[in-house]
Amino acid sequence: MSSTFGTLFRVTTWGESHGRGIGAVIDGCPPGIELSEADLQPALDRRRPGQSVLTTPRRERDEVHILSGVFEGRTTGTPISMALWNEDADSSKYEDLKTLYRPSHADFTYEAKYGHRDWRGGGRSSARETAARVAAGALADKVLASLFGSEIVAWVSDVADIGSTVDEETVRRSQVEVNAVRCPDAAAAEAMEARIRAVRKTRDSVGGCVRCVARGLPAGLGEPVVDKLDAVLAGAMLSLPAAKAFEVGSGFAGTLLTGSEHNDAFEMRDGRVRTRTNRSGGIQGGISNGETISFRVGFKPVATIFQPQSTVTTEGDAIEFSARGRHDPCVLPRAVPIVESVAAIVLLDAALQQRARGN
Amino acid sequence: MSSTFGTLFRVTTWGESHGRGIGAVIDGCPPGIELSEADLQPALDRRRPGQSVLTTPRRERDEVHILSGVFEGRTTGTPISMALWNEDADSSKYEDLKTLYRPSHADFTYEAKYGHRDWRGGGRSSARETAARVAAGALADKVLASLFGSEIVAWVSDVADIGSTVDEETVRRSQVEVNAVRCPDAAAAEAMEARIRAVRKTRDSVGGCVRCVARGLPAGLGEPVVDKLDAVLAGAMLSLPAAKAFEVGSGFAGTLLTGSEHNDAFEMRDGRVRTRTNRSGGIQGGISNGETISFRVGFKPVATIFQPQSTVTTEGDAIEFSARGRHDPCVLPRAVPIVESVAAIVLLDAALQQRARGN
Amino acid sequence: MSSTFGTLFRVTTWGESHGRGIGAVIDGCPPGIELSEADLQPALDRRRPGQSVLTTPRRERDEVHILSGVFEGRTTGTPISMALWNEDADSSKYEDLKTLYRPSHADFTYEAKYGHRDWRGGGRSSARETAARVAAGALADKVLASLFGSEIVAWVSDVADIGSTVDEETVRRSQVEVNAVRCPDAAAAEAMEARIRAVRKTRDSVGGCVRCVARGLPAGLGEPVVDKLDAVLAGAMLSLPAAKAFEVGSGFAGTLLTGSEHNDAFEMRDGRVRTRTNRSGGIQGGISNGETISFRVGFKPVATIFQPQSTVTTEGDAIEFSARGRHDPCVLPRAVPIVESVAAIVLLDAALQQRARGN
Amino acid sequence: MSSTFGTLFRVTTWGESHGRGIGAVIDGCPPGIELSEADLQPALDRRRPGQSVLTTPRRERDEVHILSGVFEGRTTGTPISMALWNEDADSSKYEDLKTLYRPSHADFTYEAKYGHRDWRGGGRSSARETAARVAAGALADKVLASLFGSEIVAWVSDVADIGSTVDEETVRRSQVEVNAVRCPDAAAAEAMEARIRAVRKTRDSVGGCVRCVARGLPAGLGEPVVDKLDAVLAGAMLSLPAAKAFEVGSGFAGTLLTGSEHNDAFEMRDGRVRTRTNRSGGIQGGISNGETISFRVGFKPVATIFQPQSTVTTEGDAIEFSARGRHDPCVLPRAVPIVESVAAIVLLDAALQQRARGN
Repeated sequence: MSSTFGTLFRVTTWGESHGRGIGAVIDGCPPGIELSEADLQPALDRRRPGQSVLTTPRRERDEVHILSGVFEGRTTGTPISMALWNEDADSSKYEDLKTLYRPSHADFTYEAKYGHRDWRGGGRSSARETAARVAAGALADKVLASLFGSEIVAWVSDVADIGSTVDEETVRRSQVEVNAVRCPDAAAAEAMEARIRAVRKTRDSVGGCVRCVARGLPAGLGEPVVDKLDAVLAGAMLSLPAAKAFEVGSGFAGTLLTGSEHNDAFEMRDGRVRTRTNRSGGIQGGISNGETISFRVGFKPVATIFQPQSTVTTEGDAIEFSARGRHDPCVLPRAVPIVESVAAIVLLDAALQQRARGN
Repeated sequence: MSSTFGTLFRVTTWGESHGRGIGAVIDGCPPGIELSEADLQPALDRRRPGQSVLTTPRRERDEVHILSGVFEGRTTGTPISMALWNEDADSSKYEDLKTLYRPSHADFTYEAKYGHRDWRGGGRSSARETAARVAAGALADKVLASLFGSEIVAWVSDVADIGSTVDEETVRRSQVEVNAVRCPDAAAAEAMEARIRAVRKTRDSVGGCVRCVARGLPAGLGEPVVDKLDAVLAGAMLSLPAAKAFEVGSGFAGTLLTGSEHNDAFEMRDGRVRTRTNRSGGIQGGISNGETISFRVGFKPVATIFQPQSTVTTEGDAIEFSARGRHDPCVLPRAVPIVESVAAIVLLDAALQQRARGN
Repeated sequence: MSSTFGTLFRVTTWGESHGRGIGAVIDGCPPGIELSEADLQPALDRRRPGQSVLTTPRRERDEVHILSGVFEGRTTGTPISMALWNEDADSSKYEDLKTLYRPSHADFTYEAKYGHRDWRGGGRSSARETAARVAAGALADKVLASLFGSEIVAWVSDVADIGSTVDEETVRRSQVEVNAVRCPDAAAAEAMEARIRAVRKTRDSVGGCVRCVARGLPAGLGEPVVDKLDAVLAGAMLSLPAAKAFEVGSGFAGTLLTGSEHNDAFEMRDGRVRTRTNRSGGIQGGISNGETISFRVGFKPVATIFQPQSTVTTEGDAIEFSARGRHDPCVLPRAVPIVESVAAIVLLDAALQQRARGN
Repeated sequence: MSSTFGTLFRVTTWGESHGRGIGAVIDGCPPGIELSEADLQPALDRRRPGQSVLTTPRRERDEVHILSGVFEGRTTGTPISMALWNEDADSSKYEDLKTLYRPSHADFTYEAKYGHRDWRGGGRSSARETAARVAAGALADKVLASLFGSEIVAWVSDVADIGSTVDEETVRRSQVEVNAVRCPDAAAAEAMEARIRAVRKTRDSVGGCVRCVARGLPAGLGEPVVDKLDAVLAGAMLSLPAAKAFEVGSGFAGTLLTGSEHNDAFEMRDGRVRTRTNRSGGIQGGISNGETISFRVGFKPVATIFQPQSTVTTEGDAIEFSARGRHDPCVLPRAVPIVESVAAIVLLDAALQQRARGN
């Protein structure tokens, strides 16, 4: 389905970059959960542009409105509709996008698919759509925390070739938020920030990775063989704009190991079955094993750069094109709350399925 | 959903390693397609164990039977049921698995999820389930080829740290099949084969990667924003046993580049809009752009090794465990037809959706 | 799923009677269809209360707003979000509903299901939700008409025991709209109107039936064996508030006939295979046969009456309860556009499925 | 979807009348339920032809085989595959069906939809497909009974114009099975049987109705506003061969009443909220209210009759056609276990959804 995530906790998003607004309808949220806009706004504020010198100075207010499904401050079990209204955007800046295909954007493919595209600010393919997922994900995160006391934390693990060292078992969101680049390894964060500034000066952009962990979830989540927990996470992460790669646990690095190096030995610890190492990333056979769920998502460099690029018009004529306006040279810091939110949606959906059909 | 892939071309698999058999029900196959078991058997033969010294000497006949949905040699549009009967397996060898959790297998998580597990040969979590997907995928591959003249080719691109060089635009299945390791780069294949033999001698196992390309598909496939083509491919690939990583186009390597290095410039070529490079991997904004679709899947080393390993029993007692029986030291060569098949299922489903709702 | 209709043309509704508003998100609408609010408003105006002396004098403006998915006056293929804002409703009149269960309403069952219910005006169970379906259905109706030149017409066929005679092959919406009761049989309409007025005087309510026909659709719509066209229509109609019965073609009356009386003989007519009679109601084996699709829906008398009734409070105490406010004594006239709309949604969804996987 | 029922308890059927066999894959069955073929066979034996002089003397063994999903006598939570192999059917008797369209059968519509149809014995449109649903439904019935102690009982309530009187609150399956016509009202059963014999003599067929009740289920089942419990039941019942009508509770008869006559007053009884009457049929606002769920399904007379009928060939030539072979003059007695089974599937699916997302 085009715009709906999930089996039991279902999130349908709508809206375009320069239309009336964007929103989400969440169907299947358990009833009786305390909920107001104040629960959702912090995640949206973290996603919003204009938070720091590293991100675009564009100002979007991104104020979320709950339109249904909540009564007397608690969810009713019926669909929760959320909307964020777009400020009056000046689409005239984008007028030239009407007649050309920006390199490595979705202009050409939307036209090929639909024959009619909203070219204003990327239309439906704009990353603005992710604000709707963040609103829904903030709700999912709250429900998960109330059910399990779980905690989902993401951070920028890599900017280009600059990696970082972070303790997956203890890192908290508050540690992620201490710097603009959202990397809790202070030295790495500094290098990353310098790199982003340098890239901006060259009117270019840069890619990188976000790592995400989920702690405190029970064993048993995930539906084999199709909706394995890591499979659904992979699908959800690759549905994010600019995402090109996903790995769970040891990931590609694990393909270099032998079985004897890679296997996670079981042992009894804390009165339950645990693994001594966590190369499985908390998921075995597609089902959570009670260890920390850990995965990494790779994002390509932002396609919008301020250097001239070759492309063609919708008529097929070759032209040079330079982006204007205000765009992030690096999406990574803003991707952090997005990855957390989408992870929360996936994990809650798996938890509800397990509640229905599991042991 | 647990065991059903797809929206319009829907594949539901069933069966366990040591049960009566395994199978698939395919619902939504277009009518009028010529089909017999002979169309499906070659892919199954490529997946089957015991094909070479590199794979397990176990013999499974894996003969596919079409039970419904085909009449007078052509599909009728109604569900196609396929089955492969299990040979009488001797589960007694697995008797000790009843009471312990093999490291990095799904024994513990299935028990946590369902409270009751078929321990014989891995039960439902066995890679044997993939034979059902291969049967369904061979059908999807045939339908795609008949609709578009498309071609899907996968190969072993990496075994541990041994990579390979293959021309994605021209490589064919016949070139993949020339050696046991299924890598069309002959020198690399030789090194890979040596590595697999060496690892087997140490009673260990080894991981690696499979690359897959799909050529000849039209622009416009993929449903934004959830069922983006790369998102659905990622989910489908991570649902394969031992898969831990996925990347499309430039993937993780692309995160090291700047936007000016990474962007695929558009140009007119062969009378249509083309990209000069293909770092996008044939997919932009989640929709195919008519270039070769290219992705890579990382598989961890096989969890079953013949060295002693620490684990716990279902009662929580620590024990040493050594696998017996016959197991591949490297799943990569057999993963090749599996990846192709699952890709075909995903791509056909996207093509049918585009036929319904597209331009 | 709770609030989503359809497989390919998917309609998700949200909203409550006295919340911020109600709305629908339509995912899967074909691109390039001309669309503005003006296409949707007439159907909403027909559904709206306060249209005649027969319906409640309540005034709802029911102005529809398209929030996404339309650009330059045409659909883009991406989700179409629609909303109708609620006027400031005075929920204080409903304050007593907080603590009691109205007979034959959904108060008790929502409480049993969710433990927390929006009691204001019926909340999610209010017929107001159908306005969202009417908006979505008006779009579906337009798409169907543009694809096939088809025509869907519903009318009040029965009020209590007053039936009517209408030519299913020729009746048009304009003939339905000539009187307040929406029955194109003038004599019957007069009797129905008199009955409704009489019932209102006794502070009671009355039930009846709506018949609906769809003409001009091709043979081949409907997905056996589950999503048979009549099965999906039945499900959609029974999901309407107060609907208790459905029949297609000859329906229950057909159960009184013998096979030789009931069978529809085939013949060639107008250059194609036709049936001489249409007891099948245009659907055979769950698939449309190209004849007029015809079905009837039975609606119970409105549960809200102004006579005292026995019930219990949420605490379990017996009390007497009399409804206040303004309520239709007969929902039938307003059900007409609702039935048409929901039929259009079902039929378009079937048509898109046939486009994807059919002959 | 064509051949899959349900959201969480999902049943996919496959197979044709004269193919290799028919079957079902059940995905989402809770684990740990005791299950063997012996649990399923009785329902299949009740559905089987040749049980009495009233039904066709054809002999189908209809022996069910469980192929997966059960280990050590208990369900594992993974897909349960079931199959019934067809005996070698002699399709030659049906050879003339290849080139003509039987009146009020699905021959013409399958050809219109798919362009290629299995004409042998009706192919996929044959009522034989329902055996797969009966097998799956017998499982659902067992799971429901083990979860709730519930009881589902159906019976033939009407044959043509011969009705019956049965106490819905107390009737049991054993009372239904006492006569061949499966009507627990002995006098009515006798009249029905006489009518069926008379109709057979005239080489004709006869229609009628099945009523079904479900007792012992909790309040709260059903997902508003789309998957209302009565909506899903209606859809499932209309998906049965020859079904043309559905009503829940008071149904069409209820449309003749006023609100004051129809409403079900609430009262406290047995320590819980009960309704004094049950015109709602156990469902209010689409959600079960804890009363007996009661609905009725109308089946048209069997289309296959032994009198000559007018029809056309696939070439469009008018011809006379008389059915040969062995066919029931009345499907009603065999429809009883089918209706029960399909009801069980729907109710269990609703119960699992409530477990996941409900109060």
